[in-house]
Amino acid sequence: MNDCRQPLLERPQLTVDLNKVQRNIDRVVGRLQKQGVTVRPHFKTHQCPAIGELFRKAGITGITVSSLDMAAYFAKNGWRDITLAVPVNLGQLQAIGQFDPQVRLNLLVDSQPSAKALNEALNESISNGVKSQVWIKIDVGYGRVGVKWSNEEELLSLVRFIKESNRLEFCGLLTHSGHTYDCRGREEIIKCFEEGRLRMLKLKNFLNSHAIFPLISMGDTPSASVAENFAGVDEMRPGNFVFYDLVQAQVGSCSVEDIAVATACPVIGKYEEDLKIVIYGGSVHLSKDSLTMNGERLFGQLALPAETGWEIIPLSEAKVVSCCQEVSKLKVSRKIFEQITLGQAVYILPAHSCLAADIYPRYVTTKGEILERFRLFR
Amino acid sequence: MNDCRQPLLERPQLTVDLNKVQRNIDRVVGRLQKQGVTVRPHFKTHQCPAIGELFRKAGITGITVSSLDMAAYFAKNGWRDITLAVPVNLGQLQAIGQFDPQVRLNLLVDSQPSAKALNEALNESISNGVKSQVWIKIDVGYGRVGVKWSNEEELLSLVRFIKESNRLEFCGLLTHSGHTYDCRGREEIIKCFEEGRLRMLKLKNFLNSHAIFPLISMGDTPSASVAENFAGVDEMRPGNFVFYDLVQAQVGSCSVEDIAVATACPVIGKYEEDLKIVIYGGSVHLSKDSLTMNGERLFGQLALPAETGWEIIPLSEAKVVSCCQEVSKLKVSRKIFEQITLGQAVYILPAHSCLAADIYPRYVTTKGEILERFRLFR
Repeated sequence: MNDCRQPLLERPQLTVDLNKVQRNIDRVVGRLQKQGVTVRPHFKTHQCPAIGELFRKAGITGITVSSLDMAAYFAKNGWRDITLAVPVNLGQLQAIGQFDPQVRLNLLVDSQPSAKALNEALNESISNGVKSQVWIKIDVGYGRVGVKWSNEEELLSLVRFIKESNRLEFCGLLTHSGHTYDCRGREEIIKCFEEGRLRMLKLKNFLNSHAIFPLISMGDTPSASVAENFAGVDEMRPGNFVFYDLVQAQVGSCSVEDIAVATACPVIGKYEEDLKIVIYGGSVHLSKDSLTMNGERLFGQLALPAETGWEIIPLSEAKVVSCCQEVSKLKVSRKIFEQITLGQAVYILPAHSCLAADIYPRYVTTKGEILERFRLFR
Repeated sequence: MNDCRQPLLERPQLTVDLNKVQRNIDRVVGRLQKQGVTVRPHFKTHQCPAIGELFRKAGITGITVSSLDMAAYFAKNGWRDITLAVPVNLGQLQAIGQFDPQVRLNLLVDSQPSAKALNEALNESISNGVKSQVWIKIDVGYGRVGVKWSNEEELLSLVRFIKESNRLEFCGLLTHSGHTYDCRGREEIIKCFEEGRLRMLKLKNFLNSHAIFPLISMGDTPSASVAENFAGVDEMRPGNFVFYDLVQAQVGSCSVEDIAVATACPVIGKYEEDLKIVIYGGSVHLSKDSLTMNGERLFGQLALPAETGWEIIPLSEAKVVSCCQEVSKLKVSRKIFEQITLGQAVYILPAHSCLAADIYPRYVTTKGEILERFRLFR
């Protein structure tokens, strides 16, 4: 039920429901482990040591991050096996060479020039001569980065280059089927994942025929949430599932009830004539990401304070229809209009939780605890 | 010319060209001052004390901000006349009551409940009984916040309520014609601004007929950049013009050469088959804002390092076609592909500079100096 007795908020606040986080971890990590797949969760979504501990309790020992700075942060938080899942930045070779040698830092390359530069930098580094674990990024259809899955010869020549380098150790092939985000529903996700899986296995077989035995690492929350057949896949690196969001609900990875983060925003305007609510909370508090539903662009979904967290309001009753730098505008039903008080905080479930969370240096749990998180630019 | 001798970047970096900033300030402040309009620049775009000083040198004494925290920051930086151009948040009434009494803090209300709550909070506050300056926000057509321009009686009753309150002092009517952002070209901007101006003057005349004499404050960069007739307008509060951006160039407020900020991003991938460049710099470094040009969604425009700042590459030669959390993808011509080296930094001119800049706690000038800026969530 809607409970407005909570204190008024001075400014927007990132809120996390740890019960939902735990449920999401249990479900997705559990289903992957049952399939014999190693789970290496992507920490770029939560970026939070306390949530990292929930993963550790679920048996996770290796993680994925999206920047070298994030890797350094989680290394300080005791993680010893970290994959940096973005192709190596030549501007960080020196920092890579000086990275904590106690940490197994897995790096990505997708071209000989970057593998060569990495090898040279490691030769010049102060570290003690151990090899650096290298994965080759494969593009199975997303079209972003990586060696194209169809370019077998290019791949073979890159693998050989790595194997001949004195400071690089070839681990395997890694991909992210980011195009599952364009899917709608379980069947489409499974089909998309299956296509990527088969392309990865084709490359694996091809390398096997040259006596090269790569591990296979795949990503993405939609696949990890609903796919059933992971045969031949050694590890999965989903990240978003820890929080999920409206895009994932639209794709079919989760229900809106699974969404574990929301931004609490004070109501600063009520306009009865238009049944319009305006909140202090714009693109600098929510991110500018959006989703399109039935031709309408939506910047989040309304939820109202409830005894344990929030109560989600259906889109038929309320929509976040615009999002400026500092404020956002909601169109609501008369019933919801009358339930909302000027000054109270309402919750906005994010279109894309990774971006919404990235704005804040800390979470407030639904129980009022503060959880610090990594932030690239301090 | 393209000069790649600069050191490689470890991570994306917000870059400002102070020569362009100065030129933008001189031009827009100059043209408004020539019209007898007081300029109260919105500092939410740059949020930077050093850039504030450039405004001070141009004769500016009053400023606009978008949060109470930003007001406190600029008060500490010596500004004594600050308008908080977002309707008052009832969750910050206590902080407002305790705000530095040396600062003239101008607040916005658009309803009796918020005016009443503000007055009561000021009565309970520790401050010394001075009145708080209050502006009434008017909606001249943008449809976001404010009393609708057509609701004369509602406005009159709110003005009377404020005038009868013991702690509020009525200053005037304030609007932001945010819908000029939908204009294309000078003529449309002028038409849109003119409509808003006439609606404000109608309300002014209406209040005058009740012996009430409000000041008129209007906003927005497009109008401030190209409108000619400001008769009856006491002050203008443009902000974005200090940097401009691709959206403003599209609207017709500026040329791309006027854009004064860009995000420097390391190149982490070159893919010759598709003439594709991938940079370390995604939506958490550039913001997720975009513009649509000829039916295509663009996340920025490429510029290459040059002796003094950057050299803008025409859209016919390069386009930022997608933007993920950590990386973005560019499609480029063969000529540009060959000009770009793996590892070098390239510049991305922002779709929306306010959001792109808001991500960073500091700027690096094209001369290498560091400028600190306000950040809401530290």
